[in-house]
Amino acid sequence: MEEIRNIRLSENADSLIIVDQTKLPGALEYIELKSREELFDAISMLKVRGAPAIGIAAAYGYALCAKEDCEEQDFFRRMDDAERYLASSRPTAVNLFWALERMRQTLRKNALLPRNEIVDRLFAEARAIHEEDIASNRRISEFGLELIEDGAGILTHCNAGPLATSRYGTALGPILLGRERGMNFRVYADETRPLLQGARLTAFELQNAGVDVTLICDNMAGQVMKEGRVSAVFIGCDRAARNGDAANKIGSASLAVLARYYRIPFYMFAPLSTVDMDAASGKDIKIEERDPSEVTELYYKERMAPEGVKVYNPAFDVVDHDLITGIVTEEGIVHAPFEENFIKAFQSKKARTEKENAEV
Amino acid sequence: MEEIRNIRLSENADSLIIVDQTKLPGALEYIELKSREELFDAISMLKVRGAPAIGIAAAYGYALCAKEDCEEQDFFRRMDDAERYLASSRPTAVNLFWALERMRQTLRKNALLPRNEIVDRLFAEARAIHEEDIASNRRISEFGLELIEDGAGILTHCNAGPLATSRYGTALGPILLGRERGMNFRVYADETRPLLQGARLTAFELQNAGVDVTLICDNMAGQVMKEGRVSAVFIGCDRAARNGDAANKIGSASLAVLARYYRIPFYMFAPLSTVDMDAASGKDIKIEERDPSEVTELYYKERMAPEGVKVYNPAFDVVDHDLITGIVTEEGIVHAPFEENFIKAFQSKKARTEKENAEV
Repeated sequence: MEEIRNIRLSENADSLIIVDQTKLPGALEYIELKSREELFDAISMLKVRGAPAIGIAAAYGYALCAKEDCEEQDFFRRMDDAERYLASSRPTAVNLFWALERMRQTLRKNALLPRNEIVDRLFAEARAIHEEDIASNRRISEFGLELIEDGAGILTHCNAGPLATSRYGTALGPILLGRERGMNFRVYADETRPLLQGARLTAFELQNAGVDVTLICDNMAGQVMKEGRVSAVFIGCDRAARNGDAANKIGSASLAVLARYYRIPFYMFAPLSTVDMDAASGKDIKIEERDPSEVTELYYKERMAPEGVKVYNPAFDVVDHDLITGIVTEEGIVHAPFEENFIKAFQSKKARTEKENAEV
Repeated sequence: MEEIRNIRLSENADSLIIVDQTKLPGALEYIELKSREELFDAISMLKVRGAPAIGIAAAYGYALCAKEDCEEQDFFRRMDDAERYLASSRPTAVNLFWALERMRQTLRKNALLPRNEIVDRLFAEARAIHEEDIASNRRISEFGLELIEDGAGILTHCNAGPLATSRYGTALGPILLGRERGMNFRVYADETRPLLQGARLTAFELQNAGVDVTLICDNMAGQVMKEGRVSAVFIGCDRAARNGDAANKIGSASLAVLARYYRIPFYMFAPLSTVDMDAASGKDIKIEERDPSEVTELYYKERMAPEGVKVYNPAFDVVDHDLITGIVTEEGIVHAPFEENFIKAFQSKKARTEKENAEV
């Protein structure tokens, strides 16, 4: 197993090096992003994807923009433009806005410092976001691991592994952490049309880690549940509203309905940065609609639908909170009532962070 | 709109001419099947597919085998071999067994006639099966049309149109018949992984007929229901047990669960030849498992999953009868209790057929 570093700064901190996830599993290619346009494209074209990974990439990207523009007279206006531009690369992932907001606050707080020091603070903040994600994935994985026994069957959808985050991942975290400890799980991975993140990334990551993974088409998940092959559904989460409604890759809500029907626990995995307390419910979450060619031309650009056919291609759906058994966060598993328990989790995180900082 | 004749005998009745459905929608190619091996391959490779169409093709194929072997001394043994061979081409479609059974009975009944007359009777029986399917599709379409209003949104899965049958189709029949009468429906077609019959065939057939069709990935069907875009699910049926459990393309059972959750009527469409009264429930229906490459290599043989990854590829699932609003047959819409009402439908069909035959 080769450890994959999906996001890192170049040695002299003038570019971001990422795995081009659109090339997987055929090739493990690292690409270098220098300009904000390259960064925008990498996010919108899903070369880097997964809510936490997008946040990390955007944070480094913001710092890189600051470095590039730090001699300019209209530096602060340029940084506002950079923020808006990067924020528009993916409309659904709240981590993107959350990370950029943190970067902007760092900028504001240090606005009176010399420019090169501002830039240093911004890189430090981006690194902090990155390191916090690693630590938070580790905690999420530990909490998730308490939900399953050695040998369990688990169904997953899309990709919420290391490639989508930093290390371990969220939904795949318990499986990979368990594997490190010698446990074995049987994972069913939905291929996840249209962009096949399950087939290309999840199957790849799990296989790479020596996990027993079986690929299925999305429409086979119900059959896998009906046949008793899995005892839990573990999936990621792109954005949760404060009532617990949670957006994730298209198909997630259907899996939740099926899991309810077949009486299988349905867990979503998310760092608290994914919880958007400003969104009252799923109705406040904008669903990104993507290009029809993703549906009609398959992943490898071979057209398999008639020319001119209409397509509806929502990239996400929202799982109603009453279908969610629990949301696994770095502060533990949040159950209903979600709003109340999210607040407790945020408080717990604050207390823990303050304690950790005091210890440092 | 070009009328597509998906199955027909050649003029001198020595081969079967079919549309090669694996080439659609890129090309409308007719291929000629002469040997039983070519026929077997056409069925198992899904060049001809759809429960009724398979039955029709197998019936003609049986007659062609009889023509080829009619001078042979061990003619009857050869016909038994031909029947077994053709029956093994697809394990789930009951119409295949039903059509071959009818052909065998025709053979037995006429066993004492001169061989060339036996062959004539077999061709006549195959033609009768074909014509009955056309008539029965027409009746199914009329009954189905009573379920929807002009302008309605309908979700469908896989392909149960003319290509899968003879004319009109089953689940697509009401839509195409309504279109002929100037009605307009908005149809959402699941692409139907792994072999994309929805994207390739349903989208093609409906577009060809001027129907407003929108292609979606299978995992988007729940979202389409949730958003109120459809007022009914119309899908085909490959084999129904006498308690009403009904096998159809993988994903069908999940659609039924979703339709129940979102309170949308779920109708399956099937000629009575699809109802297997010897199967007590879905447990008696063998689910065909197909080759992993269908999942890993997509339709155009471009691999998009890691080498060596395990695959589970069931081709069908079984819809529990209590999730089915009704099964639309040529004798009307069969509701629960299914066993009792199937018997009534068979009786109605018998009475009607006798009356029609008496009138001829």
